[in-house]
Amino acid sequence: MTRIDGRTPEQLRPVTIHRGWSKHAEGSVLISCGDTRVLCTASVTEGVPRWRKGSGEGWVTAEYSMLPRATNTRGDRESVRGKIGGRTHEISRLIGRSLRAVIDYKALGENTIVLDCDVLQADGGTRTTAVTGAYVALADAIAWAQAKKLVKAGRKPLTGTVAAVSVGIVDGTPLLDLRYEEDVRAETDMNVVCTGDGRFVEVQGTAEAEPFDRKELNALLDLATGGCADLALLQRQALDTTL
Amino acid sequence: MTRIDGRTPEQLRPVTIHRGWSKHAEGSVLISCGDTRVLCTASVTEGVPRWRKGSGEGWVTAEYSMLPRATNTRGDRESVRGKIGGRTHEISRLIGRSLRAVIDYKALGENTIVLDCDVLQADGGTRTTAVTGAYVALADAIAWAQAKKLVKAGRKPLTGTVAAVSVGIVDGTPLLDLRYEEDVRAETDMNVVCTGDGRFVEVQGTAEAEPFDRKELNALLDLATGGCADLALLQRQALDTTL
Amino acid sequence: MTRIDGRTPEQLRPVTIHRGWSKHAEGSVLISCGDTRVLCTASVTEGVPRWRKGSGEGWVTAEYSMLPRATNTRGDRESVRGKIGGRTHEISRLIGRSLRAVIDYKALGENTIVLDCDVLQADGGTRTTAVTGAYVALADAIAWAQAKKLVKAGRKPLTGTVAAVSVGIVDGTPLLDLRYEEDVRAETDMNVVCTGDGRFVEVQGTAEAEPFDRKELNALLDLATGGCADLALLQRQALDTTL
Amino acid sequence: MTRIDGRTPEQLRPVTIHRGWSKHAEGSVLISCGDTRVLCTASVTEGVPRWRKGSGEGWVTAEYSMLPRATNTRGDRESVRGKIGGRTHEISRLIGRSLRAVIDYKALGENTIVLDCDVLQADGGTRTTAVTGAYVALADAIAWAQAKKLVKAGRKPLTGTVAAVSVGIVDGTPLLDLRYEEDVRAETDMNVVCTGDGRFVEVQGTAEAEPFDRKELNALLDLATGGCADLALLQRQALDTTL
Amino acid sequence: MTRIDGRTPEQLRPVTIHRGWSKHAEGSVLISCGDTRVLCTASVTEGVPRWRKGSGEGWVTAEYSMLPRATNTRGDRESVRGKIGGRTHEISRLIGRSLRAVIDYKALGENTIVLDCDVLQADGGTRTTAVTGAYVALADAIAWAQAKKLVKAGRKPLTGTVAAVSVGIVDGTPLLDLRYEEDVRAETDMNVVCTGDGRFVEVQGTAEAEPFDRKELNALLDLATGGCADLALLQRQALDTTL
Amino acid sequence: MTRIDGRTPEQLRPVTIHRGWSKHAEGSVLISCGDTRVLCTASVTEGVPRWRKGSGEGWVTAEYSMLPRATNTRGDRESVRGKIGGRTHEISRLIGRSLRAVIDYKALGENTIVLDCDVLQADGGTRTTAVTGAYVALADAIAWAQAKKLVKAGRKPLTGTVAAVSVGIVDGTPLLDLRYEEDVRAETDMNVVCTGDGRFVEVQGTAEAEPFDRKELNALLDLATGGCADLALLQRQALDTTL
Repeated sequence: MTRIDGRTPEQLRPVTIHRGWSKHAEGSVLISCGDTRVLCTASVTEGVPRWRKGSGEGWVTAEYSMLPRATNTRGDRESVRGKIGGRTHEISRLIGRSLRAVIDYKALGENTIVLDCDVLQADGGTRTTAVTGAYVALADAIAWAQAKKLVKAGRKPLTGTVAAVSVGIVDGTPLLDLRYEEDVRAETDMNVVCTGDGRFVEVQGTAEAEPFDRKELNALLDLATGGCADLALLQRQALDTTL
Repeated sequence: MTRIDGRTPEQLRPVTIHRGWSKHAEGSVLISCGDTRVLCTASVTEGVPRWRKGSGEGWVTAEYSMLPRATNTRGDRESVRGKIGGRTHEISRLIGRSLRAVIDYKALGENTIVLDCDVLQADGGTRTTAVTGAYVALADAIAWAQAKKLVKAGRKPLTGTVAAVSVGIVDGTPLLDLRYEEDVRAETDMNVVCTGDGRFVEVQGTAEAEPFDRKELNALLDLATGGCADLALLQRQALDTTL
Repeated sequence: MTRIDGRTPEQLRPVTIHRGWSKHAEGSVLISCGDTRVLCTASVTEGVPRWRKGSGEGWVTAEYSMLPRATNTRGDRESVRGKIGGRTHEISRLIGRSLRAVIDYKALGENTIVLDCDVLQADGGTRTTAVTGAYVALADAIAWAQAKKLVKAGRKPLTGTVAAVSVGIVDGTPLLDLRYEEDVRAETDMNVVCTGDGRFVEVQGTAEAEPFDRKELNALLDLATGGCADLALLQRQALDTTL
Repeated sequence: MTRIDGRTPEQLRPVTIHRGWSKHAEGSVLISCGDTRVLCTASVTEGVPRWRKGSGEGWVTAEYSMLPRATNTRGDRESVRGKIGGRTHEISRLIGRSLRAVIDYKALGENTIVLDCDVLQADGGTRTTAVTGAYVALADAIAWAQAKKLVKAGRKPLTGTVAAVSVGIVDGTPLLDLRYEEDVRAETDMNVVCTGDGRFVEVQGTAEAEPFDRKELNALLDLATGGCADLALLQRQALDTTL
Repeated sequence: MTRIDGRTPEQLRPVTIHRGWSKHAEGSVLISCGDTRVLCTASVTEGVPRWRKGSGEGWVTAEYSMLPRATNTRGDRESVRGKIGGRTHEISRLIGRSLRAVIDYKALGENTIVLDCDVLQADGGTRTTAVTGAYVALADAIAWAQAKKLVKAGRKPLTGTVAAVSVGIVDGTPLLDLRYEEDVRAETDMNVVCTGDGRFVEVQGTAEAEPFDRKELNALLDLATGGCADLALLQRQALDTTL
Repeated sequence: MTRIDGRTPEQLRPVTIHRGWSKHAEGSVLISCGDTRVLCTASVTEGVPRWRKGSGEGWVTAEYSMLPRATNTRGDRESVRGKIGGRTHEISRLIGRSLRAVIDYKALGENTIVLDCDVLQADGGTRTTAVTGAYVALADAIAWAQAKKLVKAGRKPLTGTVAAVSVGIVDGTPLLDLRYEEDVRAETDMNVVCTGDGRFVEVQGTAEAEPFDRKELNALLDLATGGCADLALLQRQALDTTL
């Protein structure tokens, strides 16, 4: 089995993580996984939503969106249509949950961090790329909040790292990190979010054509945990660089 | 470990499937799993959405909703708020995908079936109960369409059966079919949709508190496949009864 | 003149009033008038809308809705269309006004009761059935509030009872409690809401085809007051039963 | 009983009907009943809504609206709030039904007439004033359509005339044509739409405080039919004048 | 060059300014420039929007709208479409900015004035007519606020006067105050807002067909300043009259 | 007068024009003017909006948007708020008009080009930067359409070039190409769109504080025409480079 871009089944596409891409945001990352390109910005504000006030705990949330011409055919803007589609909602919620899995709300204190993930160019795996990039922007934003003393000295709001990857079965073969051409042909499609220590935050598998059996599920999970481990390494390298 | 209602970890709540509950719909089921009560109606119309016209293929879709006072505290109506929430979108899409997994579009012909799943009373597992009940309403609607000759003689639009159940880890113990009180305390929450032959259509696991490891994931998958097999049996019994 | 279901012109359809249908709501009634089936839930919350705060007076309001497949042909969900239709608004307002006619706001104190009337199956007279059922749910909710001491001891928020019925002229004959087949053929259509002592809360008559004269109006009002008196008796019987 | 403006209980406020107020519309009337001032324009277009195409029948509909500062306190614009309120919907529907009661759809042919009733100044009775004025604009628009041969020679789309008035019980006394100060104090409020030959098109009575009995209802109906007869005369006089 | 209505290129259409047209508003003007007719009402309320509270400064804003049949062809209501069009937003913002140019926020104190400009009949120049009329309504509203002591004694919230006019190049000739028939044929269209002392508040020129050069721009600016001076005189005359 | 970044009053910020930034769009440019960064994509589709069908003429339109954290403080997404703000509408319309000024609709044929201008980072002058960048993307898209034979051989849909710049008066000094810090302090703010031959397409001047006189207006127009000429040169250089 040869993949269209010559990768092996368990190989990621080339990944670049450009920190500090925006001058305004407290954390900002332009991440690319192959031709998928997502701008992730983290905005820190003091205070929390009303339902959380007085709890002493912080909040982290995310909003995902795609530029109209990020894709091969131009899509309508959701602002013009006047409502957010189900897919956008679903992905925004997934990103938020994934990041909150590595947040200690008490340590964060009553601060809110919003992650905006805007897909500038799409070629498969936009939601997983968004999670992976947003984590890095979040880490930078938290470092900023610590430097500004918004977070109390000695507190560590981040309890771990998180990254995500897509896997799928194409022509009967389990593959890591699907490009768009692979994604549309996949019989099964799965998005997996893992922490840096190899545990699962989200497992979302969907049979697009044929239902999948336990053995296939296991093969996909193996690929995904490997891919997430590779991404965790790239995140660490990016964050170790001085801005 | 004793559960609040005395069940064992791998035991479903009592299930009732009342077919033909509505006089207007081509298929209609009032399903209850414990205190969760969902009215599922299947509406058949000739023709398909514009993007599918002329394909010779049918379409199946679903809409999920909750009555304002299905829950312990009254929620605002989405019609009054003027937009559908992310959760509602996500669940409607899940139900639609689950049912389409057992549909042969060619055999269905250019007919559309809409499954409306309205939660009349909620006590955990509303989306999985909706899938399980909607399958039965769908089967009745297809039988109706066959009797009316909307489906060509000899064609079988249904390629299998589908049922769904929730599983979760509560206080470290994997449990089947969570009630609301268990659901809010679960560290990990998973919804699993299976076909009658035991394969997976959807696996959606989320770490609510702690990330989960591969062993826990396996335990949850074991519970879920067992629960879905039990539900498949109950669906068959319900459909074998003459209306 | 024989009616399609054999009733005399001044005869109601069979009515059933099932109290306590929902476990969460403070009052809940599944009412059926013939094949029209409405779930009425009453939700009590402490406090009142902002414009009424500090007045010492309570508030009662209602929301009416129809499930998409309550009718013979599936209708779009108002939540999906993103706005509530004129008919829904009009009926919600009618139900609210009807119930408020028997409420002593001072005695209720600063509590709010919302009546949700969801039509599960429609066969004519859904708005009048909703009023009749909602009154019973409201009575149960007020009893609950009294038991919980939300209402001061000795205060009686309910000043009377209220019920509603439709009447119309079909082929020149005035008829009580129209079924859908009768309703669509009616020349004149009237909804009447009466208190238990036979006075009017609402009279809404509309000439669908021919304008109607004073004599016809009088005949319709006679039928309606008779029908409301019958319904008041059934409400009393239902409320006299121990739950 | 003396009324604030010195009228007797059965006396209308001064009415002026200014035809041809707008240069663009096919029919246009600025009507005032006391200080209530409504601009009614009738717009004729060839063709009918999709659901009526090919029927050979026309359609008449209405839209009611109030300028933000028509009232004593400025109200938000419905265009700014992004949705039409229940009251506006209800009144638009009432006006449309009232006018359709005197339309012969076949004679109108496949033409649509939209009546826009915009309240420029409000002092009670805006919906009934709108009906009364809209009828005159409608008559002018139909005359225009006949002159333009949009309506076939010899066909009479108008089968009669229609006018409306409000009545109510204030301090126990039934009164005709309530001003705002009377309206807010009314125990019962009723809007009545009559044809020129004295029959009813709409009767909408609501107990604002106390339920009303049959005798009170009769007194109100007597007042209303008298008021509508007076208005019908004024409409005829206005239409008899050459523009 | 003869204009359709016989005017010279630098001549305004006949202008009438009817103050006190509405009984409810603190300031109200029905202004007509030729057949363009706009009702401008000014509503004064104590207090300011949240973002301005405690500043000691007031606020002035405007909303522009057109009745559906103000134009030759009926337009949809923005309230029915559920959103405000770009053109409406743009004009509302222009009117608000124009009036704020002659307001001393400190002198106004924490009061808000909303100008509603509703076009009852349109024949070109609706936005400029709205500015010119709204200024007069604003002046009356401020006088009212001064009389009511909402504005502190001796403070003058108005720092000058403001008026607006449209100019354009039609068939190569610069013209003042375009009617609709001229406007649609204009190669260049410009709206100019001037203070009474001849300075500019807004200059908005748009090439509808051919780009325009500096010389043409100068000719248009000359015409516009002349027209605004004429309008300023008419405003002064209107305000000098006792209401 | 020294500017914060050391520029002279008549000096542009550094401009970079990166063509072909996106792989999907027919034309795409990432343009930066100082720290203002806008992604402009041009999408070509065959066919035109309904109101233009059969005319043989094409259409060009634009949509402007800002990422939530393009600015110093995060703004709400318009898709989340459910409606597009007045400012966004106004700018989208300005960009569309500016580009259409250099389009020969007949030569374009029945094709539609949509320019999406998404501000990735904002530091003043986002709308003028969008116009300048969108022109380059438009030119590339037209070249693509010519190569694909969507445009007939020998036809030149582009009749010229167009660029835009902001000017303003800060502390009494007219300045070219304002940064955000200058913009917020400007007494007068003007956006000017010019064709490559130095004529005006749009002139939009607004007095933010003091009204401006004719002399100041002339000084601003001089600066703006100079700046647009510089930008036209940079556009030409960018387009002369082989992609």
